[in-house]
Amino acid sequence: MPSISNKGLAMPQSPIRKLVPFAENAKKKGTKVYHLNIGQPDIKTPKVALDAVKNSNLEVLAYARSEGSEEYRTKLANYYKKNDIVVSATDIVVTTGGSEALLFTFGSIMDTGDEVIIPEPFYANYNGFSTASGVTVVPVISKIEDNFALPPIEDFEKLITPKTKAILICNPGNPTGYLYSKEEIEKLKALVLKHDLFLIADEVYREFAYDGLQHNSILKETGLDNNTIVIDSVSKRYSMCGARIGCVVSRNKEVIQTALKFAQARLSPPTYALIASEAALDTPQSYFEDVIEEYVERRNTLISELQKIDGVKVANPKGAFYCVAELPVKDSDHFAQWILESFNHNNETIMVAPASGFYSTPGEGKNQVRIAYVLNKKDLIRSAEILKEALKQYPN
Amino acid sequence: MPSISNKGLAMPQSPIRKLVPFAENAKKKGTKVYHLNIGQPDIKTPKVALDAVKNSNLEVLAYARSEGSEEYRTKLANYYKKNDIVVSATDIVVTTGGSEALLFTFGSIMDTGDEVIIPEPFYANYNGFSTASGVTVVPVISKIEDNFALPPIEDFEKLITPKTKAILICNPGNPTGYLYSKEEIEKLKALVLKHDLFLIADEVYREFAYDGLQHNSILKETGLDNNTIVIDSVSKRYSMCGARIGCVVSRNKEVIQTALKFAQARLSPPTYALIASEAALDTPQSYFEDVIEEYVERRNTLISELQKIDGVKVANPKGAFYCVAELPVKDSDHFAQWILESFNHNNETIMVAPASGFYSTPGEGKNQVRIAYVLNKKDLIRSAEILKEALKQYPN
Repeated sequence: MPSISNKGLAMPQSPIRKLVPFAENAKKKGTKVYHLNIGQPDIKTPKVALDAVKNSNLEVLAYARSEGSEEYRTKLANYYKKNDIVVSATDIVVTTGGSEALLFTFGSIMDTGDEVIIPEPFYANYNGFSTASGVTVVPVISKIEDNFALPPIEDFEKLITPKTKAILICNPGNPTGYLYSKEEIEKLKALVLKHDLFLIADEVYREFAYDGLQHNSILKETGLDNNTIVIDSVSKRYSMCGARIGCVVSRNKEVIQTALKFAQARLSPPTYALIASEAALDTPQSYFEDVIEEYVERRNTLISELQKIDGVKVANPKGAFYCVAELPVKDSDHFAQWILESFNHNNETIMVAPASGFYSTPGEGKNQVRIAYVLNKKDLIRSAEILKEALKQYPN
Repeated sequence: MPSISNKGLAMPQSPIRKLVPFAENAKKKGTKVYHLNIGQPDIKTPKVALDAVKNSNLEVLAYARSEGSEEYRTKLANYYKKNDIVVSATDIVVTTGGSEALLFTFGSIMDTGDEVIIPEPFYANYNGFSTASGVTVVPVISKIEDNFALPPIEDFEKLITPKTKAILICNPGNPTGYLYSKEEIEKLKALVLKHDLFLIADEVYREFAYDGLQHNSILKETGLDNNTIVIDSVSKRYSMCGARIGCVVSRNKEVIQTALKFAQARLSPPTYALIASEAALDTPQSYFEDVIEEYVERRNTLISELQKIDGVKVANPKGAFYCVAELPVKDSDHFAQWILESFNHNNETIMVAPASGFYSTPGEGKNQVRIAYVLNKKDLIRSAEILKEALKQYPN
């Protein structure tokens, strides 16, 4: 029997995926499971986007242009302009989700064995994309005590080797909810200029900045055009995760020309999703105001409920819709499985994401979990209550 | 300025893409361009697929399951059963087009520097996917004189090294239109069993088998379960290239489990396209009969018109909707550009794909072009007439 690849063996399995059979079993036994484990919001997709697809009059569902139509990219450039980011249509390659944007970026700038420095905890799939691209993740630890702020810039600099090609941040962060300050972005700017590195920012949660704080896109920095690459997506902005439309944005012409070659090889982004995404750009501002208000309330509710539980420490997220909580347990992978497999409170339980999958340093995050506040307030209050009861009963 | 990757530099540019600006210029000057260059059929997408999307009542465009829903994969397994291919839903991972199916397959079975043997001419993007995956393409030349039949199996065996992991065929072939016989498949079977290799077949044109010939899927072979991997797609079958839904099919559990890890990293195939693809499985048989009849007529028309032109040699395709023609020119890249840039016949011209992009051996195919018969008969006759005039005037 021919063997599969070392790369295939090394591909990490999603930390949540391992829990799915336990959640399914719990449901079969009649237990209600509150899903705090994934970033699939319950927020409705803007009607303007859904209607555009319903009203489409295609006779042939044909390929779209590999980099996205000029019309869509021009409208996207306008969207960025409204967000004080000056780019043109030619600085954009449309992709199949933020996932493909990251794959194209890694492929365009890194070869096998090259290194990318990422503050951890980070979005778990960065590990998968790195493995798929033959790239090595070099983590730099950020701390729950600091709300997962940018680690000291010296910690980054110490890790730079001749193999280092880029620093990757997620802003605001999944799973941390941390929103980087202008000062922090400028520290990164000085470092990448000094060492001639790329600075990649995953800004798919751009709109989700709370408490009157501004989002600081790396594309707002001057003198950094050749170094910055932004990963973007419609998934969270318009609650259309299933569209699978994202983009790579960079003023570095070589990067865009190279990403375009990867885009041409896979021919086309999904055409229906492009119709929805283009229409979504006409979403009224009131939609975002309502959504942000809803998330702020959910966050406040969740954090205040979690803080009431003995032994639980929680970071204070300023963006996105996640928080990382430290629990009084030794092994959150085991705990997350136990609450699905061996626990219920009045026939209800919760599913959370163990944080170990968000670290690449072995052993880190073993007592942390990520909680997505994608449920309504009532369900979040009930979920915190279930967590409290579970921690009481858990045989640590 | 940080440099892009060697991989990015090596990514090939589509051979057609280079011609696009010349086609656009011709159109600006008022010249009508007949597009024989791409596999975008003008055939209508089945109404049942388009209607399913128009009638969808989603409120949240959510993620789909990474490997595709159980329901869709079960229906897909039924489709295969109707085609005498016995597989189950668990043998399938749904992908974003055949492109992603090939990327997941390469990633699952090959590491950097591993080799895949491919009969050339082959689908140009195999070069791109190989480069992106760090895999080396080892070509084995098939000949226009033989209608691009399978090269002698000894030619394959001579190329096998310790780095060889797979043989990849496209059946029926793009760009050749060649349909492999049962005998040819069995020769490949014996070879991959002898050398413990994977046999990958890109079968996206499965339905397009003409002249009463049967399609011989590698999945119909017995005793080959651990070696076979099929790449499939809805793009050509239902004329829905813009959907971007394909799949990896294999009875090798390790391959499927590994492909699934790649699928999980990118989260989800596009949800709207899944709705269309699932509904498309209910397309009435009469649709395919009409389509096949139409393509056979187009093929017959095109081949007979091409054979009338002095100095043109053409292979006789038995499947798909392409043919490779040898022209009395030294450099078909130059010729293809010239007919767009410096030629027109009564204000009309044609766009064809130079064949050099379908070879990986430098210098091969320099006097060949690929012609896609995706236009109606009248346009094909006119296109052949334009080609004839162009060859008369071309300053070779």
